[in-house]
Amino acid sequence: MGLKPNSALKASKTLFVLPSLFTFLLVGSQGENTAMDNVATERRAEESHRQDSANLLIFIMLLTLTILTIWLFKHRRFRFLHETGLAMIYGLLVGVILRFGVHVPRNMNNVTMNCSVNASPATLLVNVSGRFYEYTLKGEVSTVKGHDVQDDEMLRKVTFDPEVFFNILLPPIIFHAGYSLKRRHFFRNLGSILAYAFMGTVISSFVIGLVMYGCVTLMKAVGQLGGDFFFTDCLFFGAIVSATDPVTVLAIFNELKVDVDLYALMFGESVLNDAVAIVLSSVLLHYEKQSRQARHGHGETTALVEEQGIPPSSIGAYQPAGDNSHTFDATAMIKSFGVFLGVFSGSLALGVATGVMTALVTKFTKLRDFPLLETALFFLMSWSTFLLAEACEMTGVVAVLFCGMTQAHYTFNNLSPDSQDRTKQLFELLNFLAENFIFSYMGLTLFSFQSHVFNPLFIIGAFIAVFLGRAANIYPLSFLLNLGRKNKIGSNFQHVMMFAGLRGAMTFALSIRDTATYARQMMFSTTLLIVFFTVWVCGGGTTPMLSFMSIRVGVDSDQDSSVIVSDGTQHRNTKHESAWPFRIWYNFDNTYLKPLLTHSGPPLTATLPACCGPLARCLTSTQAYENEGHQHNDDSDELVLNDGNATMYGDVTVSTDASGTRTTNYKHLSASTMGVTSEEALDQELAFGEHELVIRGTRLVLPMDDPPEPTVTLPPPPTSPPPFSDPFSDPFSDPFSDPRRNRL
Amino acid sequence: MGLKPNSALKASKTLFVLPSLFTFLLVGSQGENTAMDNVATERRAEESHRQDSANLLIFIMLLTLTILTIWLFKHRRFRFLHETGLAMIYGLLVGVILRFGVHVPRNMNNVTMNCSVNASPATLLVNVSGRFYEYTLKGEVSTVKGHDVQDDEMLRKVTFDPEVFFNILLPPIIFHAGYSLKRRHFFRNLGSILAYAFMGTVISSFVIGLVMYGCVTLMKAVGQLGGDFFFTDCLFFGAIVSATDPVTVLAIFNELKVDVDLYALMFGESVLNDAVAIVLSSVLLHYEKQSRQARHGHGETTALVEEQGIPPSSIGAYQPAGDNSHTFDATAMIKSFGVFLGVFSGSLALGVATGVMTALVTKFTKLRDFPLLETALFFLMSWSTFLLAEACEMTGVVAVLFCGMTQAHYTFNNLSPDSQDRTKQLFELLNFLAENFIFSYMGLTLFSFQSHVFNPLFIIGAFIAVFLGRAANIYPLSFLLNLGRKNKIGSNFQHVMMFAGLRGAMTFALSIRDTATYARQMMFSTTLLIVFFTVWVCGGGTTPMLSFMSIRVGVDSDQDSSVIVSDGTQHRNTKHESAWPFRIWYNFDNTYLKPLLTHSGPPLTATLPACCGPLARCLTSTQAYENEGHQHNDDSDELVLNDGNATMYGDVTVSTDASGTRTTNYKHLSASTMGVTSEEALDQELAFGEHELVIRGTRLVLPMDDPPEPTVTLPPPPTSPPPFSDPFSDPFSDPFSDPRRNRL
Repeated sequence: MGLKPNSALKASKTLFVLPSLFTFLLVGSQGENTAMDNVATERRAEESHRQDSANLLIFIMLLTLTILTIWLFKHRRFRFLHETGLAMIYGLLVGVILRFGVHVPRNMNNVTMNCSVNASPATLLVNVSGRFYEYTLKGEVSTVKGHDVQDDEMLRKVTFDPEVFFNILLPPIIFHAGYSLKRRHFFRNLGSILAYAFMGTVISSFVIGLVMYGCVTLMKAVGQLGGDFFFTDCLFFGAIVSATDPVTVLAIFNELKVDVDLYALMFGESVLNDAVAIVLSSVLLHYEKQSRQARHGHGETTALVEEQGIPPSSIGAYQPAGDNSHTFDATAMIKSFGVFLGVFSGSLALGVATGVMTALVTKFTKLRDFPLLETALFFLMSWSTFLLAEACEMTGVVAVLFCGMTQAHYTFNNLSPDSQDRTKQLFELLNFLAENFIFSYMGLTLFSFQSHVFNPLFIIGAFIAVFLGRAANIYPLSFLLNLGRKNKIGSNFQHVMMFAGLRGAMTFALSIRDTATYARQMMFSTTLLIVFFTVWVCGGGTTPMLSFMSIRVGVDSDQDSSVIVSDGTQHRNTKHESAWPFRIWYNFDNTYLKPLLTHSGPPLTATLPACCGPLARCLTSTQAYENEGHQHNDDSDELVLNDGNATMYGDVTVSTDASGTRTTNYKHLSASTMGVTSEEALDQELAFGEHELVIRGTRLVLPMDDPPEPTVTLPPPPTSPPPFSDPFSDPFSDPFSDPRRNRL
Repeated sequence: MGLKPNSALKASKTLFVLPSLFTFLLVGSQGENTAMDNVATERRAEESHRQDSANLLIFIMLLTLTILTIWLFKHRRFRFLHETGLAMIYGLLVGVILRFGVHVPRNMNNVTMNCSVNASPATLLVNVSGRFYEYTLKGEVSTVKGHDVQDDEMLRKVTFDPEVFFNILLPPIIFHAGYSLKRRHFFRNLGSILAYAFMGTVISSFVIGLVMYGCVTLMKAVGQLGGDFFFTDCLFFGAIVSATDPVTVLAIFNELKVDVDLYALMFGESVLNDAVAIVLSSVLLHYEKQSRQARHGHGETTALVEEQGIPPSSIGAYQPAGDNSHTFDATAMIKSFGVFLGVFSGSLALGVATGVMTALVTKFTKLRDFPLLETALFFLMSWSTFLLAEACEMTGVVAVLFCGMTQAHYTFNNLSPDSQDRTKQLFELLNFLAENFIFSYMGLTLFSFQSHVFNPLFIIGAFIAVFLGRAANIYPLSFLLNLGRKNKIGSNFQHVMMFAGLRGAMTFALSIRDTATYARQMMFSTTLLIVFFTVWVCGGGTTPMLSFMSIRVGVDSDQDSSVIVSDGTQHRNTKHESAWPFRIWYNFDNTYLKPLLTHSGPPLTATLPACCGPLARCLTSTQAYENEGHQHNDDSDELVLNDGNATMYGDVTVSTDASGTRTTNYKHLSASTMGVTSEEALDQELAFGEHELVIRGTRLVLPMDDPPEPTVTLPPPPTSPPPFSDPFSDPFSDPFSDPRRNRL
């Protein structure tokens, strides 16, 4: 395909540029009001569209090639290189070819006009000999490159719009992470995960920031620094490289069926990590802005100098005359902390809110009769979370994460089995495509990005800083956590967590988001190397590391509890982990939220106080009664709400256990006794009640054996995972003894 | 939601504008080189991003609302309004609210500069007091509105980039149409379908063009025409309103299980229709361009006048001085016809080629072990068809249609059952979302589009023309076809085809693609009304129409042949329909292509001449032998290629028919005897061999009962559709008698 050089680099951008290019073409060809130069413009636009399609095609081919090679690797059971690493390698190869193999023609179409406008409006109408052309503002071009317009033109072509990551590619990845969270193990280790994710990330950011500041000071001393690099830049760097990737290592963990607690810790940390890092870095930008605005308010001199337009320095980023931006402004810092909390909790609330709304809609309509409609609604509601958060000036990606978790916890139970599969598969596919696209672009950008600043000292410093930052996150926190944990986080676990802290899509997206200044360019180049190193070396070394550290592999997560108890070596029940706030939450969730939002759980009529009776009857679905009574299969969607069923609830005496070890006799369970939850029951709920969405996605074929509806036939064989919409999902509400219990 | 007026109108555009707006924001906030006005710019950009997210959110909410109402309608079994009609109504409501309910603030940010540039480069760098801002060309602004920049600004905001339809929304719709084509009935009626689609569309275009030209001449005579309207414009209008929509009516047909031949005729015609109309309209544009270039070549005066920039006329479209563009240029006409053939066949070839490539890849790799990879590959390959076609200056939408058909015919058989579901569901979802998005946008645009030209005479003329055009397509062609058809197309069929020729997404997309001139604006407004009328009135009236015309409903398409034969009233076997070219094609397809591209069919070792033995052995998959021998289930993916199996092929004597009516005894089937294909066998192949992908999508729940792999257990009960990857798919190659045969 006789492609113009550097063409694939624009490819990803093409997707979004295509429509406007087409417009260009058409506006050009419309009507009859065209002179010869207009015909030429038309040609150029046509050519450009052709070119763009070809460019995007290269990317598609790259992905196709990656898929085929992944298949080959999986087929041959190579585990040393994950698909993301592979995508990077292919990206690198294409980058090399485009950079060195193809001649770069220069685009001579730039016209620099010096007009007496002193504003930069969003739209320009340029009057070219009687005809009006509309131009939209792309943004300010870094003045450093203003010297050589031709180079800049090329650079712009090569640099693909970084916001594509944040608005198109990251949301499905993060949503998928939330939707596929193994919540049982996640909640079991929630305290530790939160500690690692919040405190750990902040610690890591500051440690990396400090080390880098030392490194930068050293570089300045030896004259290696070609531009400004402030303390806030260092902190920003710390924040972006503190986001660990939930994908690469965990795919390996999943395939190897590594110890579930380790898995939960790594996965939970990585997922929340991303959310923390993105909010943290945006808060740092906000802090910068704050202090800048403060300067503008107080120091008029600075502002005046800036307004007059300082000519760009010949090398290095253009920085304000006042060098005070790296001094610490306490007020701005506190404000920023407030912003951090506000943005994080706001995004969380939004995500949960849309999740809950989806759950309510799917519960109270019979949309489940039409899986396509259900899936479409699910998709649209999940997408709207992102938009809503962005519209409210929150962080869309964070909202999407919590929306995914809420959808998995509540909505998923209301979906028809068909929609459960469809939504899982849809987001799995989107995640797969987005992820491989990002990683192959990452490889490509190493050669295609024109403003790389590879500074050996900085790079070495960064690797040391990342190592130290990770260590300062894992080891001290593990020590502290072990003081409180009955089930200690072993030193082998700690080493693996230390080793397997890969950096991936989020780090890359955050670092490419802004590559205008010298500092940011150096950060970007270094970040790329860090991602490559961690994905290839740490990712590839995970399997040997696991065996070296003698971590248990081949654990069936669904049987985990029973296995452990039977061999008597370890006791990790939730009661050991979960502090009272979580237990209170669980009781609340199981007694009120689940019944309210899903068809599972005890009917609200049983759990709510008597005064709320009519409301409770309204909100309780027929299926909830059915699940309680176990009298009907829930495929009878047309059943009329039968309040009489509710009275069956309290009166059941059952002895269904196959092995006969446990006979349950609940008589007249009242709302008050329902509230009293034994820790064992809580553990049970966590252990068996939830559907297991695994990210084995690309690794293992998703089991298609979900029964179309929860059947009343009793114990599923121990090896099969519990059915997705298991009527036994809530042991509190279930007066029948769960036969799986006696395996404990 | 306190939204700014007209905001939702930009919503759809937002999806693509978002990234660049984000860039805008970030470039603004980057570094420290900001004066106070830059902070303001930043604010504006942030606000703009917030706004855009909110706008897109409105659209998502609109779709969500549509989904919920659709569910309600389905639930209550309302059939008078299809979901697309509903989406339009909601769009209309939102359009009314935005138009009349909200105040429109004017954007004062436009700066019109008169600079001494005499070219319109793709990128402008504007030097604003020392800082460079990059502007990209959006396109030429129609000079008519150059007078009032404020109005124009609003107009542009309201008019959503029409190329989004062609590059984002139409491809999945058209691909889905191709992928879900009921190929059995399609091929049965192929001759008639091709006649309707090709000749019919051309006839319809010309009839409508001529009627409209008459109408326009009349309007000119009575002084009702506010601008120029040439004959080519009339023809263009004819082409765009000749594309009938394959979606709305067929969903009703599908739900009612209408007569399969009627279904096949309507569906086949509508689908190919779109392809013909899009190529025809682009050829008309090409013809315009050709004749324009010819004028430029010969008549230098015109060119000169144009180059000097004629000031825009105060009303009406800006037209060149020479009014000769509507004269008929024979050379350009012939060239255009050549272009039509070239573009159509080129696009077809490209689509088929990528389909075949996908089939080969899925056949010769064991990608089916990893459904996610398989689905991703399928998706990427199908998408690459579109890009490849656009890169080759073909029509992507047409390529995608034929790619979809090829994928369904060949690749689908190679996919794992899981991937078969996934791909169907994925494209079903994409189709659903894209379709409803287009239709709701259509409703919205009736009020939001600012340059509507509603001319009563033109509208009445257009409705008459559309009616006449459809009549001139259906009735004469049906008469001619009935001369050749044994199974006549009854007059009731003809009336329904006449009545149910709805106009939908393609017509809308073609008409909104260019709304710059007066003629095009009038066309667009009129087209909108035609779409509304046909979707609401004709779509809603389909069910009464069917019963009025006493068309058979409730036909199970899979049992159709047997039903017909048993009641003895009608004989519609393929032998009556298919002329010799199709029979030759079938033999070729079944003997060579299917075995080459899929796992089904007779092994190539049996069908290819002996000299090609080694090649044939290479190309024949293990599964093909297995399918022949019926000795193994094909879930044993790890089976080594066993050439010995091939010898089993010729020697089988079987009598498996449950009712004992037919005993098949094939001994030593040679390649030559394989080539002799009885017409009955051909009919069988068409009748049972193919999986049935139905577009019942949103209507009926897709059956999830495909067996995970083709099993050897014999007859499926008559009521169940044949399993998707049926080993019996090719009766020629199948020495076992198909028990379903005796139902004939």
